[in-house]
Parts: sequence; structure tokens; C-alpha cells
Amino acid sequence: MSTSSYSEVKSEQMEKIDHGVADLPSGPLDIYRKKASFNWKDMVLFIDGEDLLAFKQHVFRTLENDPLFARQPGEDLPMEKMRELTFLRVKQLFRYNLVTQEDMMANPWKMVVFNDCLGMYDWSMGAKFFLNKGMFGATVANSGSERHMKFVQNIEDMTTFGCFALTELSHGSNTRAMRTTATYDPSTQEFVINSPDFEAAKFWVGNLGKTATHAVVFAQLYTPDRVCHGLHSFIVQVRDPKTLLAMPGVMVGDMGKKLGQNGLDNGFALFHNVRIPRENMLNKTGDVTPDGRYVTPFKDPNKRFGASLGALSGGRVSISRMAVVNLKLALTVAIRFSATRRQFGPKDTEEIPVLEYQLQQWRLIPYLAAMYALDHFSKSIFMNFVEFQIGQMMKDKSDRQEELGREIHAIGCASKPLGSWTAQRGIQECREACGGHGYLAMNRLGDIRNDNDPNCTYEGDNNVLLQQTSNYLLSWFHAKHRNGVQIKSPLESVNFLEDFNKIVESKFTATTMEECMDSAVPLAAYKWLVCFLLEESQRRLEQQRACCKDDFEARNNSQVYYCRSLAIVYIEHLVLQRFHNLTNDQDTPAGLRPVLSQLCSLYGLWSLSNHMATLYQGGYVSGRKPAELVQTAILTLCSQLKDDAVALMDVFAPPDFILNSPIGKADGELYKNLWSTVMQGNQVLERPSWWKEFCSDKPEVGSLRAKL
Amino acid sequence: MSTSSYSEVKSEQMEKIDHGVADLPSGPLDIYRKKASFNWKDMVLFIDGEDLLAFKQHVFRTLENDPLFARQPGEDLPMEKMRELTFLRVKQLFRYNLVTQEDMMANPWKMVVFNDCLGMYDWSMGAKFFLNKGMFGATVANSGSERHMKFVQNIEDMTTFGCFALTELSHGSNTRAMRTTATYDPSTQEFVINSPDFEAAKFWVGNLGKTATHAVVFAQLYTPDRVCHGLHSFIVQVRDPKTLLAMPGVMVGDMGKKLGQNGLDNGFALFHNVRIPRENMLNKTGDVTPDGRYVTPFKDPNKRFGASLGALSGGRVSISRMAVVNLKLALTVAIRFSATRRQFGPKDTEEIPVLEYQLQQWRLIPYLAAMYALDHFSKSIFMNFVEFQIGQMMKDKSDRQEELGREIHAIGCASKPLGSWTAQRGIQECREACGGHGYLAMNRLGDIRNDNDPNCTYEGDNNVLLQQTSNYLLSWFHAKHRNGVQIKSPLESVNFLEDFNKIVESKFTATTMEECMDSAVPLAAYKWLVCFLLEESQRRLEQQRACCKDDFEARNNSQVYYCRSLAIVYIEHLVLQRFHNLTNDQDTPAGLRPVLSQLCSLYGLWSLSNHMATLYQGGYVSGRKPAELVQTAILTLCSQLKDDAVALMDVFAPPDFILNSPIGKADGELYKNLWSTVMQGNQVLERPSWWKEFCSDKPEVGSLRAKL
Repeated sequence: MSTSSYSEVKSEQMEKIDHGVADLPSGPLDIYRKKASFNWKDMVLFIDGEDLLAFKQHVFRTLENDPLFARQPGEDLPMEKMRELTFLRVKQLFRYNLVTQEDMMANPWKMVVFNDCLGMYDWSMGAKFFLNKGMFGATVANSGSERHMKFVQNIEDMTTFGCFALTELSHGSNTRAMRTTATYDPSTQEFVINSPDFEAAKFWVGNLGKTATHAVVFAQLYTPDRVCHGLHSFIVQVRDPKTLLAMPGVMVGDMGKKLGQNGLDNGFALFHNVRIPRENMLNKTGDVTPDGRYVTPFKDPNKRFGASLGALSGGRVSISRMAVVNLKLALTVAIRFSATRRQFGPKDTEEIPVLEYQLQQWRLIPYLAAMYALDHFSKSIFMNFVEFQIGQMMKDKSDRQEELGREIHAIGCASKPLGSWTAQRGIQECREACGGHGYLAMNRLGDIRNDNDPNCTYEGDNNVLLQQTSNYLLSWFHAKHRNGVQIKSPLESVNFLEDFNKIVESKFTATTMEECMDSAVPLAAYKWLVCFLLEESQRRLEQQRACCKDDFEARNNSQVYYCRSLAIVYIEHLVLQRFHNLTNDQDTPAGLRPVLSQLCSLYGLWSLSNHMATLYQGGYVSGRKPAELVQTAILTLCSQLKDDAVALMDVFAPPDFILNSPIGKADGELYKNLWSTVMQGNQVLERPSWWKEFCSDKPEVGSLRAKL
Repeated sequence: MSTSSYSEVKSEQMEKIDHGVADLPSGPLDIYRKKASFNWKDMVLFIDGEDLLAFKQHVFRTLENDPLFARQPGEDLPMEKMRELTFLRVKQLFRYNLVTQEDMMANPWKMVVFNDCLGMYDWSMGAKFFLNKGMFGATVANSGSERHMKFVQNIEDMTTFGCFALTELSHGSNTRAMRTTATYDPSTQEFVINSPDFEAAKFWVGNLGKTATHAVVFAQLYTPDRVCHGLHSFIVQVRDPKTLLAMPGVMVGDMGKKLGQNGLDNGFALFHNVRIPRENMLNKTGDVTPDGRYVTPFKDPNKRFGASLGALSGGRVSISRMAVVNLKLALTVAIRFSATRRQFGPKDTEEIPVLEYQLQQWRLIPYLAAMYALDHFSKSIFMNFVEFQIGQMMKDKSDRQEELGREIHAIGCASKPLGSWTAQRGIQECREACGGHGYLAMNRLGDIRNDNDPNCTYEGDNNVLLQQTSNYLLSWFHAKHRNGVQIKSPLESVNFLEDFNKIVESKFTATTMEECMDSAVPLAAYKWLVCFLLEESQRRLEQQRACCKDDFEARNNSQVYYCRSLAIVYIEHLVLQRFHNLTNDQDTPAGLRPVLSQLCSLYGLWSLSNHMATLYQGGYVSGRKPAELVQTAILTLCSQLKDDAVALMDVFAPPDFILNSPIGKADGELYKNLWSTVMQGNQVLERPSWWKEFCSDKPEVGSLRAKL
């Protein structure tokens, strides 16, 4: 690993052209920036590439230059105003049309990068934009047919505005239990959409609160013969686009304030026998003929159900990404703060940056490593997903395509929990690491935490989703044992299980801290963990079934410590494996590989350290040494990376305007920025409007006191 | 342990008089309430006692009956309005005068219970009230002398309003580095209070933003001979009580929005050579004579400094308590939600409460156990603190009193981190466990999380405080080894270290799950953990010193995995020990002991499970069995307690009006309460005021698009 600092080799690197990466303003952060072991601009170009870098800068500049997007850090806006501003900004995005349909087809990743940019500015705005175009538009396009294209076209120019209405007041995770009905009436060739009671009101629907005119509504389909054909989706007009008033029979409204993302109007709708044309049924997976017969290309209703929800599958992949973006925002604030906030020191006369403290390093730098690991992972899994989507569009019916679908489902169901929880914990750590100043709204850590929070919940509760992943792994295990199939998946995430017997017998072999600092060490340990927990989960399930539990109960009683942990180590292994591959890839620039390798080792060891008890329990490690080696290696890596931390953060930090956090600004002038923002607050030095309430009408102490 | 359900033995228990514990409304929660193994009213009386129960009910009823305290769940109030309402409510509390000085002297615990009640309603209000009376008033009373009593009297009837100004913009943890100066001018017999620059502005001062007229200001004292005598406190008038306008030379204002507690006006102040009378110096620990000489009863300036900050020592004890109260609020919401929310089931036709899922039990019930353990602990440590305070008032100069002070300091510095972090994590788990509905502001989990958050930071950052505790333990260890003193402290929290040699040699001996379910098992393991980590921390420190690190660096590099962990296991041991003693106390009602024992075992094992790796590492456990036993015992205890969970929660749940969370209401009518609250929201069914922005002025797509 390189020990020469960046400044020593700066002169030769300066000769390189920096391809549009702008210099950062000079200031107190220079101390660390000069100590960096790598060229941060090379890292930017390696990660983004020139084109996407230029695109990001263009998006950021567009927002910054348009007064409509101006804001004050920590401003106190009423919810109604936030909803309005967000709507106006989304409308402006239509005018900018920053990513066209053609752009996206040429490079689907560009749409993700665009969403990153919008989210870095404000997730409410990104959500409002994509729920209309992505969720409503894509669902109609994917689940409907030619006759529905007008609905897609109408949202493209905001003639109408769309939303996606699946969950109900009393049902979220159990989607099959939705109770809204769509009953076909052949006499008028209409569906009658009805909510049996308020518990079946569509609930939590983004954009429905104030703006949506049309909704994709999931409802139980009944044909005139009173047969229920299960959940199907329908386009229901909920408001008149000319007035934004509710359509007859539709009671639609705003759910009120949320913990975060209050620019987005989540809403509810109750349908009182609302009639819609037969053609509004999204008919890709099933249709009703004019005379009322149900027709479907699927024989197995389970398969049809799965396919009709298929439009959701991209959501989890993109949520994993959104969580990483939140981690980037929070860490930018906390790392820059830690590098400039000085408190205590070896002498009374001189204080040192809090980043110099081992404890502060240990709190933050592993999350920095996780950010790099998850950034790479979210990109690579998105590319896998695109491959799958192309297969679907090409109507690829091969076994590989089906297997790819299963594998991506399993990965997405675990990467969303891993990403959203890592972000949740990391943001909280950042908040606390910034002390009191982290508790000031203007520094944005509260908003980041609040805006990240729903990532743990929507598109499937994290804990519920993890079961999907463990089921996938157990089914491989089962197939292997029962039918002797070879374990081999399109993305190779499970291939190592072929060596199951060898792996479960393997042991921790590192004997020095230096050995331990190679990411191959945690990687091997993770392989063992997956195998061990797979076997234990299987054993637990069998035990439960043996003592007379039905399958439902047996599965429920095998989650904690078994299946749930299995899903977590599987995804952590995969994230680590892919990052490990990247750091060992000859295409990765040699100048960046040392620092990336350190990040990879730190991520691996730090994640692994949560599973030390299991490693001991199963005999992979024993005695005092291994835990000590892992701990020492983590602390050493943190200490090695602390001088790179600011530069590593600069790579991902958005411009100051976007970050909108005085203590996180690129110039590192922590106090000046904080103070000037406080001073520009609303009525900051004025006495309160209610000052007379203090100065007169003094309370008579005890005048209202009653005897107990 | 009793296996008969409460309903079976209800008839005999019904004969008891219930001493004023009101019945709860019937509804969906009845199913669980009937299954409870104990009488929840007996538990209420055991924990609160009749008098304090009546007092709590009186406080709650007073607030509920006064329209000034009316509110709507999740209402969206501007910050200015929140500040105003909180002020008006505090003023009303002066009129009610619910706890008099005499009440408090007769039973100091009553003041804590009063703070619990106010905090359960709204922490901003409690803080605003107590920062004036408790922080300002008590500091003046304790650090000043007879000549300052008028300042205390003036806040009692709101002639003036007080605040406590210690931290500055650039200094929080390092209090000695404060830069505000107080320079004595003998020519006028005044102190000149000055902030050298904006970085030395007093910052984060509660009540200073909008309302305070007087502040206790900490400043470096300079006598005319230019000698600095260190930090002292002064009463500085910052606003005119007749107008609420700033005094000449004082720039005072509001810091703006925070993550939570926005009813409280935190503020800042810059002093431009503000002159105050000599008598305004709080002179208990040092004074300046009219001619400008410094006089102090302390010879050692360190001792004086410690004593002048002594007024802060109660804060941590009370924050530990506040954190438990937050856990109570969040768990009330999450447990009642989980007992009434149904999702999936063994059959398609019937769904079961999510509390029936092992995973949901494992997520929530250990926090319920922690709540009971920490509730008892926070009460017992408060009583110890009162004993200490009485000693101080009696001017007890005994060694025991000094030792008591050190021990309480060490306990408080660890119990605040334990309490605030347990609450932080528990509240987050509750938020997620309530799914999407937990993300609706009206259900209050966001406010609880946001209001609890500063408990991790103020009165000392958690991680910084933990060092105080480990220093205390290491000093005992050192004294024992070096001077052979007996380890024996007034509260006996360290006495077991006398058996150090025996304990470090001890092993985990439980061989069955049943054995493991006795809280003596985790208790013994914790004793070993404290001894092991004490020795390891000492070794680490010596290693660090040996490789040429100065003491500052050696200590910093011994925190992670060593000193920090040591402080945590020490406090967890003490909390467990005290709860264990309670469950084994013959004065604890026999009917309550079984459930309390289960809670104690669960708390102990669950906390211990975070340290399994250390137990393996140090050889206290080995092989597969111990971890399995601990895990199985935890799951079994969760499952045993799930039918008691609702009743256990009823014991601590405040009235619905106070809890202010539709999904947490006592009648368990989850959906009806949620729906009716949504319907009563502001303009819920109206089209937005900005509807024309959608209906006309449609965006021309791409009209603003620029080429890259």
C-alpha cells in the first residue's frame, strides 16, 4: 500500500487533465486534502465517467441557477407550502426535461444518476417526479396494452398526473388481502370500483393527496358470475384535471404530515361504486371480455399475481441506491465537520480536529467504507436488473432468464434492508458525531434521517423482505440435497455453495494483523457464515416442523438468529465480493487501488465484526487472537484512512447549494457558515410577536391550584 | 413461574380495592389484557404508590381539562407558534403551581414524576419550565449567596425568566476552553462581560432565543492585575423584562429550527463589553473584593472548577430518566399497534396480530424489559443522588460523601449514554415495527425520536462521558494493585471487584435453557465482563504508554473495544443487579414477582447477547452451546411475555390525551382512531390553494432544456 502522501506526488499528477472536475475552495479542509494518498479527481472520473459527471454538474447547475429552487438551510415551511413548492419544482423539471426517453434508453443508468441528483436536493421532489413518470407511467406501460398509451402520453406533458394505489389502511405487507373490489357490469361494459369500508381505503399513495388525477388502483376482480379472479390493476380517474376536484364517488384526500418527505402529498381514496370503462383494466396478465368472461394467458393464478406485481421489482434496487445517496449526504456533513471541529488536545493551548480521535474515526470511517462498497454494489446490481428487464422486453422465456429473475428478487429483497439500515444507522451516527450542531435543522442531518426512514418500510418491510432471500437460499440447498442439482446462478451469487462441505470445515487462518487487513480474510469468513447459517436455518426449520408446527409457524419461528441472519450475511458477502473484485480488477486505476483496497478491507472486517459471536459459536474462530486481530485491523485501517477521509468524501459530495448544510460546506469554514446562516434566519434578533404575553398578564402563582 | 392466566384468577383479585387505578376502555386489546398473568393495577400501585399515582392523574387531568393544552395529533404548527404556545402553557403552569417548594422538599421524587408528566405531554414545555426554575434557579441558589436570592424570587413569579449559558459556538465538550471573559473594573465595581468574537458566542442556551431576561453566564474571570482565575458564573441581564428587548451591548437571538423540541427557544448571545454589578458574580466558590482581589475557599483551582460545575451533576441522572419516559411513550404505541394490527396468518381466511410473530416479539419485547429495568434504575439512582445532595447541603466533608460523589458521577456518566441510546434504538425499532403508520406524524413516533435525540448529546456527549466512568473504574483497579486498598464504594457498584481473581477465572455454567432463564446467569456473566474488560483496558493503556504515547494519546487509543466497552458493561451490570435485587426482594408483591423475574432475565440475556463475542474471546464461554442457550432463552422469554405485553404497557401508558397517538390509544381501535384523525386534519379533502398551478400554465416539455 502506498505510504507517500498525495502532495508529494502532486506535481506529476497535476499534469493530467482533470476533465471537468472543478477545484474545491481553499480553507481549513486543505490540511487533510493535502494529506490524501490519492487524486480525488481521478476517483471522480473512475466512478462517474466524464459524460455522467458532466450530466450531474449540469443538473446541479440547473437547479442552482433557477430561483424557483432557492432555499434557506433549516427554513420552517408550512406543509401546504412545501407541497406547493415541490409541485412547482416538478413542473419546472418538465420544462427542463433533463433526461429524455431516448437518453434513458441509451443509458438507463443515467436515470438513476438523475434520481440521485434530485434526491440529493430533496427526496420529496424526486419522489413526486418519479411516482408520476416511473411508477404510474411504467406500470401502465408494462401492465397495460396499446389502448392505455394515451394515459402514458397524458402524464408526459402533465395533462394529467398519476399515482400508484396498492396498499390499504389495514393492509400493507399482505398485498393479497387487499379488499377493494372491481366488479364488471356487462350491461354498461364498466367496472365498478368499490371500497367495502374505510379500512379498505387506499392509503399511503404518493401524489394522491393533492395532485393526482389518475391512479393505478389494485382491486379484487369480480366477473358477473361472482367469481373472484384476484388482484388486478385498473386506471381510475380520481380528480378532474380541469379543476383538481374529486370525481363523483371518489373521496380523496391528504394523509397529513409525515416524519419526512413532506413535499410529497401522500393520500388516501375511498371509492363508492365508481364506474370506469372496461378498457381501463390493465390487461397484460388478464382481461375481461365485453360480455364478462375472464381471460388470462396464465394458468396458475399465483404466477399471474407475481407477474402483475412484477412492475414493482425495480423499486427495491432503486431504494438500495437511494439509501446510499443519503449516506453520502450525511457523511459529507459529518466528515467535514469532524475535520474542522477542534476540541481538546494534548496541550491546553492547542486543540485538535475531532477526526484525529480514534473513537471518532471508528464511528465514521467504517460508514465511509460502507458507502464506497454500497455505491459500487448498487450500480452493479442495477446493471444486472437492466439485463433482466431487457430479457423481459425481448420475451426471453429461457431458464436462465427465469433464474435471473429469482436471483435478482432475492438480492433486491436483501439489498434494500442492508442499504436502508446501514444508511439509517450511519445517519444517526453522523448526527451524534456532530454533537449539538448536528441537532440544528439547518445542518440537514434531521431531514436526511427523516427522508431515509421510509426506505426501511415501503416496497416491503425490511424484515418481511429478508424472508424472501432466505427462502431462495434454502430452496437451493434443498434442491442440492434432494435432487443433487448443481448450485449455479446467473449472477453467481450462490455458486460458492457448491463447495459447501469444504467451506463449513474451513477455519480462520490469519495470524497477523497485516494478513487480516486483506479483504480476502473477511470474504472467506463470510462464505463460511453463509454456509453455516444455511445449515443451521435448515436444521431449525426441520426441528420446528418435527414438533408439530405447520409450515407457517415453522417458518415464523426460524427467522430470528437463523433465516434472517442468513439473508443478511448472504447480501453482505455479495456486496463485499463485488467490491473485492473491483479492487483487484486490473481495469481499476493503479493509483486508486490502494485506497479502495483499504476501504474494502475495512468494510469487510467491520461488517464481519457484527458476526464474531457466530464465528466463535460455529468454531470458525477460537481463542482470544482472532477477535483481537479483527479489532486491531479495523482500528489500524481507520487510522490509515483518516487522512484520506476528506478527499474520499469530496468524491461524492454534491455542491454546497445542493447539500444545503452550513457545517458541511466545501470550504470547511464551519463557524462562519453556521453563524451567517443563523443570522439570516427569520426574525432571529426580533422580539417575538407575543412579547406582551410575557411583559403583562403575569401569572398569579397558584391561582389555578386545586386541591388533589 | 405462574402459568395460570390472569382471567382465571380474576375473581379473587377483583375483590381487592384498586386504589384509584381507572379501568381501560374495552376493545380489541381485551384479548391480550385477559390473557395477562398478573394484575396490572397491582403493578401500577407497586411502582407508583397511591399518592404519586393520584398526583400523576391530577397533573394529566389538569392538562386535559384546560383548553390551552388542547392539540391535534400531527398538527403542522409554524415554529413561532410552537414557541408561543409553549410559553403560554408554561405560564399557565405557574398558575397551577402543581408542585410547590414544600412538596418537593417533602418528596424530591415528586418533582421527577412531575417532569415525567410534562415530558410525556411535550418535552419542550417541560424543558422550558425546568430550565428556568431548575437550571437557572437552582444554579443561582447553589452557586450564589444571600445577595442573589432576589434573582431566584423573581423567576418564581415570572417577573423575570432565566436561562443557563455555558456552551459556546466553538466549544461544547471542552468547557474549560470557553472564551467569554468577565473582567473586573474596580473604578465602577463592575464586571465587563465580553465575547471576543462570534465563535465565543454563547450558543444552544435553552430559553435564550425568545424569552430569557436573565442568564447565568460562564466566563473566564480576569482581575485588574490581568490574572485569569478560570471559569466562573455571573448573572447577566440580557433583555428588559418590560419590553423583551435586548439590553445594550447584548446581541441575543434565536438559533432557529432544531430536529425536535421546537417549542423551546434555544438561543445565542454575544456580549459587547456589557457591564454588570460586582454583586452579580455567583460567589460560592470564589469572589472578587470591591478593590479587585480574587478570594476563594478552594486552594486547588481544579477543585473549584469541579465544584462550580457541580450544579450540573443532577442533569445526567434526570436525562437517564427522560430517556426511559420516551421509551415508554414509543413502546405504548408500538405494543398496542402490534396487538391490533393483523397481517397474514396460517390460513388465508384469518389474519393474526403481528405481535404473534416471533420476529415482532424479538424486536419489541426486549425493549419492554429494558424499560422496566431502566425505570427501576432511574428511580433508585435518583434516590442515591438525593442522599448525596442532602450531604452537600449538610456540608458533609466525610470521605464517604466524597466517594459517594465520585461514584454517582461515574454512574451518571454511563447511565445517560445507556438510557439515551437504549431509547434511541428502541424508538427507531418501534417506528419501523409500526410500518408505514409509524411514519405518519400524527402517531408521534417521529416527535418522540426527535425529542429524545438531544439526550445523547447535551450535558456531555455520550461517548465523551463514558470516559469518565472508565477512568473511575481504572482508578479503583490502580489503587487496589498499587496500594492494596479494599474496593468498597458507598453504593457498592464496584464491591464485587474485590473478588476480581475469582471472577476472571469463572466460567459460564448453565447447561439447560431453564437454568439460563434465571437472571443470575447474565448477572454472573456481567461480573466477568467488567473484570475482563477492566484488565484488558489496563493492559491496553500500558501498551500504548509503553510505545511512547503521551497520556492524552494513550487514553484516546484505548477507548474503542476497551475503556468504552468497560463503561458500558459496568452500567449494564449495575442496572441488571438492581433489577435482579428487586425481583428477589421479599417486599416485592408475590403476584408480580414472576413477571418481573421474566423481564429481568430477558433484559439481562438480551443485553448480554451484545457481548457474546467478548465472552467467547475471553474464554468465559466456549463451544456452540452457550450462545444457543442464550438465544433460545431470549426467544422463549419473549414468547412467554407476549401475552403480558399489553398489560405491562398499560402500567406505564399515559392517558390517550397525553400520548396523543391514534394508533396507540387505550381502546385499541387502531383503524377507527387513525381514520377519524386523518379526517379531522386541516383541509384534508379540499383541493390545494395552488390548484390553478396544475390546471393552467401547463409546462411545455423541454422548453427550458439546454444543451450540455
